[in-house]
Amino acid sequence: MNVTDSPWVRLIHLPKPTLQDNTGDTDRLISALKLDLKTDAIHVDLDLIKELPEILRKSDYKIRCILFKDQHRWLVIGITGDADTCTAAGLAVDLGTSRVVLRLLDLSDDRVLGESGFDNPQLAVGPDILTRVHFAETPGGLEHLNKLIIDGLNQAVRKLCRSCQIESQDIYAVTVAGNTAMTHLLMGLNPHWIIREPYIPAVNTPGIIKTAELDIQVNARARVYIFPNVGSYFGGDLISGIFFAGFHRLTDTAILVDVGTNAEVVVGNKNWLIACAGAAGPALEGGMTKMGMLAGPGVVDRISINPETYEFDLHTIGGKPAKGICGSGIIDLAAALFLSGMIDIRGKLVPAACGPRLKKIGGLAHLVVLPDDQSATGADLTISQADLDSLIRSKAAMYTILETITTSVGISLKDLRSFFVGGTFGSFIDPDAAIAIGMLPDLPRDSYKSLGNSSLGGASLALTSFDFLKEIDAIRNRITYLELNVNQDFMNRFSAAKFLPHTDVSLFPSVKIKSAF
Amino acid sequence: MNVTDSPWVRLIHLPKPTLQDNTGDTDRLISALKLDLKTDAIHVDLDLIKELPEILRKSDYKIRCILFKDQHRWLVIGITGDADTCTAAGLAVDLGTSRVVLRLLDLSDDRVLGESGFDNPQLAVGPDILTRVHFAETPGGLEHLNKLIIDGLNQAVRKLCRSCQIESQDIYAVTVAGNTAMTHLLMGLNPHWIIREPYIPAVNTPGIIKTAELDIQVNARARVYIFPNVGSYFGGDLISGIFFAGFHRLTDTAILVDVGTNAEVVVGNKNWLIACAGAAGPALEGGMTKMGMLAGPGVVDRISINPETYEFDLHTIGGKPAKGICGSGIIDLAAALFLSGMIDIRGKLVPAACGPRLKKIGGLAHLVVLPDDQSATGADLTISQADLDSLIRSKAAMYTILETITTSVGISLKDLRSFFVGGTFGSFIDPDAAIAIGMLPDLPRDSYKSLGNSSLGGASLALTSFDFLKEIDAIRNRITYLELNVNQDFMNRFSAAKFLPHTDVSLFPSVKIKSAF
Repeated sequence: MNVTDSPWVRLIHLPKPTLQDNTGDTDRLISALKLDLKTDAIHVDLDLIKELPEILRKSDYKIRCILFKDQHRWLVIGITGDADTCTAAGLAVDLGTSRVVLRLLDLSDDRVLGESGFDNPQLAVGPDILTRVHFAETPGGLEHLNKLIIDGLNQAVRKLCRSCQIESQDIYAVTVAGNTAMTHLLMGLNPHWIIREPYIPAVNTPGIIKTAELDIQVNARARVYIFPNVGSYFGGDLISGIFFAGFHRLTDTAILVDVGTNAEVVVGNKNWLIACAGAAGPALEGGMTKMGMLAGPGVVDRISINPETYEFDLHTIGGKPAKGICGSGIIDLAAALFLSGMIDIRGKLVPAACGPRLKKIGGLAHLVVLPDDQSATGADLTISQADLDSLIRSKAAMYTILETITTSVGISLKDLRSFFVGGTFGSFIDPDAAIAIGMLPDLPRDSYKSLGNSSLGGASLALTSFDFLKEIDAIRNRITYLELNVNQDFMNRFSAAKFLPHTDVSLFPSVKIKSAF
Repeated sequence: MNVTDSPWVRLIHLPKPTLQDNTGDTDRLISALKLDLKTDAIHVDLDLIKELPEILRKSDYKIRCILFKDQHRWLVIGITGDADTCTAAGLAVDLGTSRVVLRLLDLSDDRVLGESGFDNPQLAVGPDILTRVHFAETPGGLEHLNKLIIDGLNQAVRKLCRSCQIESQDIYAVTVAGNTAMTHLLMGLNPHWIIREPYIPAVNTPGIIKTAELDIQVNARARVYIFPNVGSYFGGDLISGIFFAGFHRLTDTAILVDVGTNAEVVVGNKNWLIACAGAAGPALEGGMTKMGMLAGPGVVDRISINPETYEFDLHTIGGKPAKGICGSGIIDLAAALFLSGMIDIRGKLVPAACGPRLKKIGGLAHLVVLPDDQSATGADLTISQADLDSLIRSKAAMYTILETITTSVGISLKDLRSFFVGGTFGSFIDPDAAIAIGMLPDLPRDSYKSLGNSSLGGASLALTSFDFLKEIDAIRNRITYLELNVNQDFMNRFSAAKFLPHTDVSLFPSVKIKSAF
């Protein structure tokens, strides 16, 4: 009866009604679907019931159904004649605080149709979540923030659909992975209590909602699945990453680190999952995340230094003249400076090794990475001692978090078989460099796996099987959230980690510094 | 934890959130309800999630939940502080072609709060379903008919709420029992195919819909249960009657007859149910239903005739001067005329017995029931030979239907232990009179049970237990619909039934006519 293997799109041929078989149109369809899907629970929206009699008679009772499966029922969300070849599309959304990325998939074969991104229009209200939450508390503030993101999303969807030559009406399913505050703002939920002790979201598991209820302008009967969160500081974006990394199927213990607006860490396997996030954020904030500029043409992303000649080899994105350094470039730089002896184990610039590259600007030591006559800006490209100090704090905080979370579950960092790195951070970082400065543990290099945009990856993957939605909810329910206390123990570890690569160099056997030559 | 026994209204005290227990507000509520209701499937609407954080904190986490249970999930449709004493009301609707009747109940204790009725505003378009269905096919016709009934309903609800001193926002559940065409028009479904062979409704089992989707102006989250139909001519009003009569629990076989716009008959018990309707309608139409005037003050509803003196004893509603005769009055009159020998076994007026009461008007024989000097109208109150002929046809059709349906399932009318009579017809009819003219079978008088407005009765009963909604769907699925063929066998039976009480007088042993004295 059915000629497609997709769970979303079923071709159904109904027996035609007669005087002896006078079952109503909707009930006739439901009977056939019950057989086809082997289920007892099928729901058809009223507005589809309104269209059904005409569709059935026009298509001679041979139809194509677009389905969605929620926790308890199959939902019929679209019906056309079986000859209809319109794409039934799904939309995956990574709802970031700064940037929103969309991916369009063909639901019938999981093929990617297109991808696009746009800056979160809420940036106009404030760059960070805290500013926006406070703004949401002003009269009309929540509505304004909600409208900004919904309008932005709708505009981007229209554009993406145009470029993929489909109608936004052809989108029948949407998945959204975002942090807790962003998903609250998307749903028009007041985020007031998210930022106040004891930090309670209005909802952890929003589940499946009609897109029309959120004013998302796709097919009016389309459903949106919003990834669940574990708490105010542990959002659906990370759950999506865990799902994308496949933690819930791992036999060996793995770790996932995602540094976006906050640093979020998950350790576990198919049997258990421990996560922590947020609390250690302040130590990192203004560190990793504000460090360097956004990647783009002319931005330095790779640096190496010849330890003999102290010559710098800079790689810029697109091979354009250098105008600045991005986060991964700064980690590369710090590693190269350390390995060549231009900074010491405390991260302090070593005048003897730096030579003429050392300059005082405003009374503060700076190292010239690229002189003014070679840079795109016409000014020296420099890194200051303060930048380096900040980097040391950040890397120390990161390592301390990793050490604390693994210790708390009774394992050592060395026990980790896989180390997933998510977010922008993970896409560009060089594990060698990060290990050289002691930011990441000294594991075999092939343990490191960059997930790219794991939030979008998980959202896309979720569109390929209904069973995944259940799995995602199960992942969420299995996570133990660990509040990371910045106590004396943490501070002791932090102090030890503020050296390059670490006070205990035996932890980093693979790191060979110049002085050891 | 819970101090009420109502399935609709639960008092829930939630544990307050802490840093150690940071479950989101909605998920916290769902956890508590899962325990309280012993279920895994609970759904909270998005707009309620929006309000929840404030409600919880204002009421110190002690709340009152209004619930609705659909086929697969419990729905949370209202939340207030636990100190809130607002009524949570349910509305039962009998959606008649001519008249709509409402009953308001307190969901917490099933108490009736009030009742009202209004003429179906679609009467302005046409008195019968057929006219309205054709009108629905004209441009904008369906929308107009839908708006007429929805507006009428909303207006009546506001009025009824005012008189009961509740807000329409306090109505959380609505049940609607109506014929198939009327429920289609209520839902805005095109009834086009209902009246065309093979007579297919758009839907048999509409199930549970948000009232807001139908523009029914009660609580925006309230749900409406629409009684299922078995086919185009066997509607939810009759299913409601079967449910109200308790057929699905009967050990002995019973029959239910409902004469509204159509004649509908059900035979069965808890094991099986056979129904037929509609097809024999033409024989009855312009008969029972158009016979006499609507009951009201001054309308004659009971008539007896002294068989010795031929004196008439008329009873009018409210004891007011007589202005006309209603349906049950006409059946009484026919029975009395027959038993006193004033009409013969063919229903023809007998001049010798009628004496001076017999008049010719327009060349046609009339019997004066009440002379002009005693009637409220100042004119003679009469019944014509044509009226009597029409009554004979109607009663013959009714008896033939009863005989045919019982025969078709292999039982005799005498096997019936209970004879339920529904609709207006059933409320006022005197079984003795109906048996005397051979309209109803000659069963022990205590077999006859008037159900009153069984459609409204069933709709009200459905509001008292969630399990009933499942029972109603089960009743619907158990019904075997019998297309009543007006074939030679039917016509033979019909001919035999066109005598008073019947050609085979042995079928009516209790009927003693005057000539037998």
